[in-house]
This record gives sequence, C-alpha cells and structure tokens, in this order.
Amino acid sequence: MKIAVFAGSFDPLTKGHEDIVRRALPLFDQIVVAFGNNSSKNYFFTLEERLHFAQLTFADCPQVKIDTYQMLTALYCQQLGAKFLLRGIRNAADFDYENTIAQLNRLIGEGVETVFLNTAAQHSYISSTIVREIIKGGEDPSKFLPAPVADYLRPKFTK
Amino acid sequence: MKIAVFAGSFDPLTKGHEDIVRRALPLFDQIVVAFGNNSSKNYFFTLEERLHFAQLTFADCPQVKIDTYQMLTALYCQQLGAKFLLRGIRNAADFDYENTIAQLNRLIGEGVETVFLNTAAQHSYISSTIVREIIKGGEDPSKFLPAPVADYLRPKFTK
Amino acid sequence: MKIAVFAGSFDPLTKGHEDIVRRALPLFDQIVVAFGNNSSKNYFFTLEERLHFAQLTFADCPQVKIDTYQMLTALYCQQLGAKFLLRGIRNAADFDYENTIAQLNRLIGEGVETVFLNTAAQHSYISSTIVREIIKGGEDPSKFLPAPVADYLRPKFTK
Amino acid sequence: MKIAVFAGSFDPLTKGHEDIVRRALPLFDQIVVAFGNNSSKNYFFTLEERLHFAQLTFADCPQVKIDTYQMLTALYCQQLGAKFLLRGIRNAADFDYENTIAQLNRLIGEGVETVFLNTAAQHSYISSTIVREIIKGGEDPSKFLPAPVADYLRPKFTK
Amino acid sequence: MKIAVFAGSFDPLTKGHEDIVRRALPLFDQIVVAFGNNSSKNYFFTLEERLHFAQLTFADCPQVKIDTYQMLTALYCQQLGAKFLLRGIRNAADFDYENTIAQLNRLIGEGVETVFLNTAAQHSYISSTIVREIIKGGEDPSKFLPAPVADYLRPKFTK
Amino acid sequence: MKIAVFAGSFDPLTKGHEDIVRRALPLFDQIVVAFGNNSSKNYFFTLEERLHFAQLTFADCPQVKIDTYQMLTALYCQQLGAKFLLRGIRNAADFDYENTIAQLNRLIGEGVETVFLNTAAQHSYISSTIVREIIKGGEDPSKFLPAPVADYLRPKFTK
Repeated sequence: MKIAVFAGSFDPLTKGHEDIVRRALPLFDQIVVAFGNNSSKNYFFTLEERLHFAQLTFADCPQVKIDTYQMLTALYCQQLGAKFLLRGIRNAADFDYENTIAQLNRLIGEGVETVFLNTAAQHSYISSTIVREIIKGGEDPSKFLPAPVADYLRPKFTK
Repeated sequence: MKIAVFAGSFDPLTKGHEDIVRRALPLFDQIVVAFGNNSSKNYFFTLEERLHFAQLTFADCPQVKIDTYQMLTALYCQQLGAKFLLRGIRNAADFDYENTIAQLNRLIGEGVETVFLNTAAQHSYISSTIVREIIKGGEDPSKFLPAPVADYLRPKFTK
Repeated sequence: MKIAVFAGSFDPLTKGHEDIVRRALPLFDQIVVAFGNNSSKNYFFTLEERLHFAQLTFADCPQVKIDTYQMLTALYCQQLGAKFLLRGIRNAADFDYENTIAQLNRLIGEGVETVFLNTAAQHSYISSTIVREIIKGGEDPSKFLPAPVADYLRPKFTK
Repeated sequence: MKIAVFAGSFDPLTKGHEDIVRRALPLFDQIVVAFGNNSSKNYFFTLEERLHFAQLTFADCPQVKIDTYQMLTALYCQQLGAKFLLRGIRNAADFDYENTIAQLNRLIGEGVETVFLNTAAQHSYISSTIVREIIKGGEDPSKFLPAPVADYLRPKFTK
Repeated sequence: MKIAVFAGSFDPLTKGHEDIVRRALPLFDQIVVAFGNNSSKNYFFTLEERLHFAQLTFADCPQVKIDTYQMLTALYCQQLGAKFLLRGIRNAADFDYENTIAQLNRLIGEGVETVFLNTAAQHSYISSTIVREIIKGGEDPSKFLPAPVADYLRPKFTK
Repeated sequence: MKIAVFAGSFDPLTKGHEDIVRRALPLFDQIVVAFGNNSSKNYFFTLEERLHFAQLTFADCPQVKIDTYQMLTALYCQQLGAKFLLRGIRNAADFDYENTIAQLNRLIGEGVETVFLNTAAQHSYISSTIVREIIKGGEDPSKFLPAPVADYLRPKFTK
C-alpha cells in the first residue's frame, strides 16, 4: 500500500493544504494528514479544533486519514509503513527550506522519499500565518479556507 | 495504471537522471523516459545513442519504457494516458523555472500533475551540460554517468 | 506628465503583459509600450504583427502609446521625458535579473526609476516563450493572449 | 489623489526606508508612512520615538504624512482611500516574501496594488535589525540612519 | 599573519561546520572558531559544552583557536587583527542572508572581508537546528556530528 | 605558494572583476587571471584586446599574472599548482549557478576549492554583458570599467 504522510501543524488547514492533498490523491493509496504534536509551541487553534477542521475537509475522502504524532517525522513514517512524505512548494524560498529537510528525512527515514507538488498559482499566497492574521484583524478568512471549515467558522466572523 | 512521463533531451542521460527515475519507481506503475524530438536543436549525441543509453541504464527495470515524441509535452501525456510528469529539482533556480512549466502543463494537459523529487545531495551538481563539457575537454565523465553508459563510453576516453 | 516605458520585444504580447499595463494605468499619465528594435535578433512574429497586437490590445486605453526604439532603454526614456520604467516580476529568479538592469538604468538614465509590479498569481506562468512553444506545437494559445489578439490569431489555429 | 501607504514598524527608520520614500515621491501625491501598532510585539524604540524619527526625516516633504493604524494593512489602505502600497526589495528572498503578501493585499484590499522599488545598491545591506544590533553593540549607527535621526541619536553614542 | 574568524553559536558544532573549517585551513594561518556570547539567547548546550565540542573537534589542528566574544563581530575581528570572516553557504537563501551581513561587516570592520566556501554537497542538509531536533526526538545524531563529538555524546543516546 | 585562478572570458574586464581580484589579493600569493580560450565562442573584443585590458588593469600588481588556457578549468588549476578558484557572487541566482560548478571542480580537480567573495554592493549591477550593450548603444561605458581600460577605450566613444 502506497502511504504518504502530509505533516504539519495546520493552524488552521487552508485551501492550499486541501488542494495539495486532493491533487496528490491519485498518486497514493492513503494520505495521512499528520499533526505534529509539539507541546512547547503555542497554537492559535486547539489540537481538537485543528483535527476537526481536517475531518470536515476530507470527510468525502476515505483515502485520507487524520492522525497525530510526537516523534521525528521520518520515524513516524517508518512506524506507519509510509514510504512517502508529501509537501507543497510555493516559491524558491520554500524549496531551499524544504529541500534541506527532505534530504535529511531520506537519510533518517532510510529512504523515506519526499514528493513535492507545486502550489496551484491561485493558492500561492495562502498560508496558515496569513489566515491567522486575517482572523486577528477581525476579518472573514473564508476565501482562504476549505469550504466546510469556512462554514464552521463563519458564525464567529459575522456580527 | 499510474503512468509518469520523464521528458527531456538527455544529452546524455546522467547519474542524476537515473537516480530520479529509480527513486520514483515505487510511486508509479510505469515511467516513460521520453525524448522530445526537436529537429531544430543541435545535440551532442545522436537520438540513437541517447535512446541506447536509456535502454542500457534501465535494462533491469521492466517498469521503465523509452519513447520519443514530437508534440507539446502535456499533449503527449494525454495521448499516452499519463497523468503525471516527473521532474528532479536541484536548487531554487531550478524550482522557479520548473514551477512555471508545471503550472502550464496542468492547464494545457487538463490536470496533468508534475511530481517533483529533489536531486539527491551527492548528485546535485551533475547535469548533461557538465558531462558534455567534460567530454569536450577530453576527460572521462564516468563518475557522472549511469554505470552501463560509462562502460559503453569508456573506450572512447582511454587512450 | 508622469510617463512610464514598458519595454520589451513582446513576441507576442501576452495576457500577463496586458495585465501589468492595465494595473499600472492608475499610476501614470501615459504608458508607452516600447518595442526595442534589435535587427540582429530573430523574432517569431514580425514587428508589424507585434505592433498590431499591442494596438488591438490597448485600443480602449488612450493613455497607452505604442512605439519602437533603437537605443539604450534608459536613453530612450530620457529622450521621451519618461521618468519611469515599468516591469512585471513573476518570481525570485526574475527579480535577481531585473534588479541588476534597474540599478543600471537608474545610473545611465540619471534617475530613471523602475517600478515593479508582481505578476498576478493566475498569470504567473505565462510568457511569450511559452506562447510561441504552444503555437509551434500546433495548439491554440488563446487563453494566454489578450482577447483581441486571441480573436485575431484564432483562425490560424482552427482547422 | 494618488496615495501610497508605506507600512512597517520602522524600529528605527533607516536610510534605506528614507531612500525608498524619496524615490517614490514623484509617483504619488501623498505617501503615508504608517506604523502598524502591534501591542503584542516588543519594540526597541517606543512608538513616540519611532514617530519622531519619521517626522524629523520627512520634515522637508509636505507630501509625506506620518500615521499609525491597528487593522489589516489592506483595510487601512481602503479606509484611507489609498490605492497603493509601497515596498522596497533588496534581494530574491525579499521578493518571495513580499510577493505573497502583495497578492493577498490585492485580494483583501479589493485592488490595492503594491508598487515595488528595488533598494539602491548602496543601501542593500541596511535594515532596522542591523541598526539595532549596532546600537546594542555600543557602536554609532549614524551611517545607516537618515541625517536628522543620526543627529538626534548621536549624543547617546559618543562618550 | 592571515587570521580568519569563523563566528557562530555552534549549538552544537556540526560535521558541516567542521568541514568548512578544515577546507579553509590551507587559506589561512589561523582560524578562530569564535562563540558570540549572547546572554539573552537560550542555548541547547551550555557554553562550556559547546566550547568543549570545538576543542575536541579541532584537537589535531594547531592552526585552529577557540574563543568567545561579546561585541559586534566586525569589531572583534579588528581587535584580533583578523582581516577575514569565514562562512559556509548551502543554498540561495543562505546567500541572500549572508551577503547582507558581509556587506555590513566590510563597512563596519573597515575592510574585513568575508570569504565564502560552499557547503560540500553531502553536508548541505546538516544544521545545528536539525541536530537539536534529532536529539529532542530521542534519536542518535552521530552522523551529523564531528567524530569526537559523536563519541562524547553517544552514551547519552544509547539506552 | 597559495595560487588562485580567476577564470573567465572577461569580454571585457569590468570594475567588478577588478574589485574581486584586488580584494582577494591579501588572501593569496598569486592570482592568475585566466582567459578560457574557447574557439567556438564569439567574443566582442579579441583575445589580444582582452589580455591587454587585464595587463593595463593589474600593471601595479606583481602578484597578478595573466594567462590563457584551453582545458577544463579544474585541470588547468592542477597543472598550475593552484589549489583555489576565485569567484565573485552578486546574488542568489549567481550562487545557484556557481555552487554547481564549484562542487564539480572540487571533484574533478581533486580538492580544488572555490573561494567566493560577494560583489561589493556598488558594483552589484555591473557585468561584461551590460558593458557590451552600452558600447553597442554607442554610449561611454567608462564608469563600469577599470580606470586604465576606460582611458584606453574613451577615444572611441567621444565624437
């Protein structure tokens, strides 16, 4: 079974993340959206909320599993039997950063391969950081979120 | 069937190309090493030689097919029933270039998705251009070539 | 009068070029789409065709002028009384290239300032090179061209 | 009226910032140097000091206004009737970062356009971070500061 | 005497750092591995540990000195009579960052020149950050560390 | 003896090239400005002119030698007993290109190390290409050239 891990903190999951997973579905038998559980990090949304967003977003995709983990990502892949990591890349700066990590994961994970898709042009400026800034600014982030997440959050942004 | 096209002029095929194909094999049912046949371009090796190098290199891989084509790459993918293009990326400059083409191919190819692998660190400086320069300089390019290609060419570089 | 020069070979003018000019219109009193006439270069479309494409595209914009020139771009700006050059940037690689030229033009043009707009995300993969490749491949490049240019060229691509 | 917002924390305003504003003056009727007031951020200089530095620097420019704001930048532009954001770019890494934000602001701000100037070569290594490091190191940062700011701060750095 | 300063926090020193110093030895009469002592920063290893790692690593190199400093790096170079700073660069993003600092150090240090070596391809994904992550994940970071540092730390990672 | 090779076609030598060599002089006992003699390439200035420009520029530097070569650069270094290549880097795009070549030369040249200096900010937009464009445009390129080269060429650009 071809399993890919799409790891992150997804704080929150964006339309960009959703698009990468959906475009990668034909490549894999299973994609695990995996929340790295880092207790020393401050998150904007709780783990429960972030998991819920992922469940809502991929409710129609039996191939997508949601999970959490607390070890090195490459070891988590090995434990899961996942031979692939999935990453989206927006621009050159992203690549330089992701390339370093991917080289490392191949070494630590004894062959865990990172598969990169480029972010679709129309999503290339979306990031979790930007969604959080918009929410902090009291504005509606709907157009950057997966439809079910936007629906779920909308009541909070309409006064 | 999951088919990926690895398109290029492969003038000649390098160890870097070989590594990308071999690392991508677990992802696909078939990888087509496809030589874009551009009659207006000057090649260092003839099409026959370049095809032969690919056949030698992937003789042990029944999943790998060798082919030539003369149309837009995205249309060739569609004709073949290939939903994926495969590309290796060495650095940030490569990404900016490849990203543009991949966005285009997704549009023209009606969803043809480009799958990027990063070049293995130890191959990150190998390119066909560099191999040609070494050969023009009268030196032995063996360490940059797939083993069977190096064996085939070696007699020409030992005096 | 605030005049900007948008210089290039526009072989052919694309939707990306059109978008940069239209988005820059509120900044300037006049934008001159200026064709650098380089007799040693081989063009795909003739100068007449390329000028005609620009005239069709900006027929509704009295602020846009079409012109040709044969000197250094910075000097052409000075002769015209244009204090600004206009450039679109798609990615990091574009910036490194354009930055060098802009620093130079400021020096040679005695203060000619280059104003950069970023390419709209949805046009970030369009270039004249790509349009020419599509045409050479016998396909219809309409979606990458300004509407009147697409209309003009369409008869040639429908058999 | 053509209004541009030059937003930042300017902690402190540098010669690089000053140069971008002065070079952009011929483009706009008004440039608003706007201090994003983020109460959760720690600043080196107080808001009062930072505003004072801007007032000193642009005392000779009636076109330049100094302001503070607490909302999303794109919304602040709309409230002000400013159709443009002004940004300086030093290098490729800057562009990748700024491009993302500019795409977003165009969307949120319903057409707010970001105008990029390249940093003048001789200022390309100046940043507020670097000025703060120099001050923390007990050295005189005068050559990186607008002349009136350097004059104002100099007594503190001469023993 | 040609002295170069290789400054950093080396938290911890990696095989990448070691390689840069060893490859630079033929260039200089002395290389000073200099620990910037920043009391406001949180380190993973204590200063004593970090210094000890450097001493272990370069025990066989009489040309290498280990030191700490608390002032601006360029001024430390001047005080030491060092005309050179030594830096390793892994990728384009590193260069944009390091270039800015090097331009500044040349100015503040009145001619202190930064000499860049590229990171060897096989070390291009190693960084202190990554080593710390591996240790936090409870794994053995030996293959990213200088041999004597790996030997020293190994007992802590074998249960 | 520490010998560095500064290789190129120098068509023509610019102020940027001169600056890199002069700033590198304290590092080496000898710097060889080496003209790669590529008979299939079209040059703007003849080899004689290009050599003469280098001799004029470095007439005051007994440490600088001028030479030509026709083999792979790394092998030329070995034949000369030069352990170092010297390169100037202007920006991120330059680094990605030069890094690849330097990794290769270290391998082919059995340890030939490439030493990179960053281009001084005020020269970061100068290149031989730009000088040739200025000359083709009938303008005086003096400010981009070493003083003696500018003096030598000036009569040709004053009418």
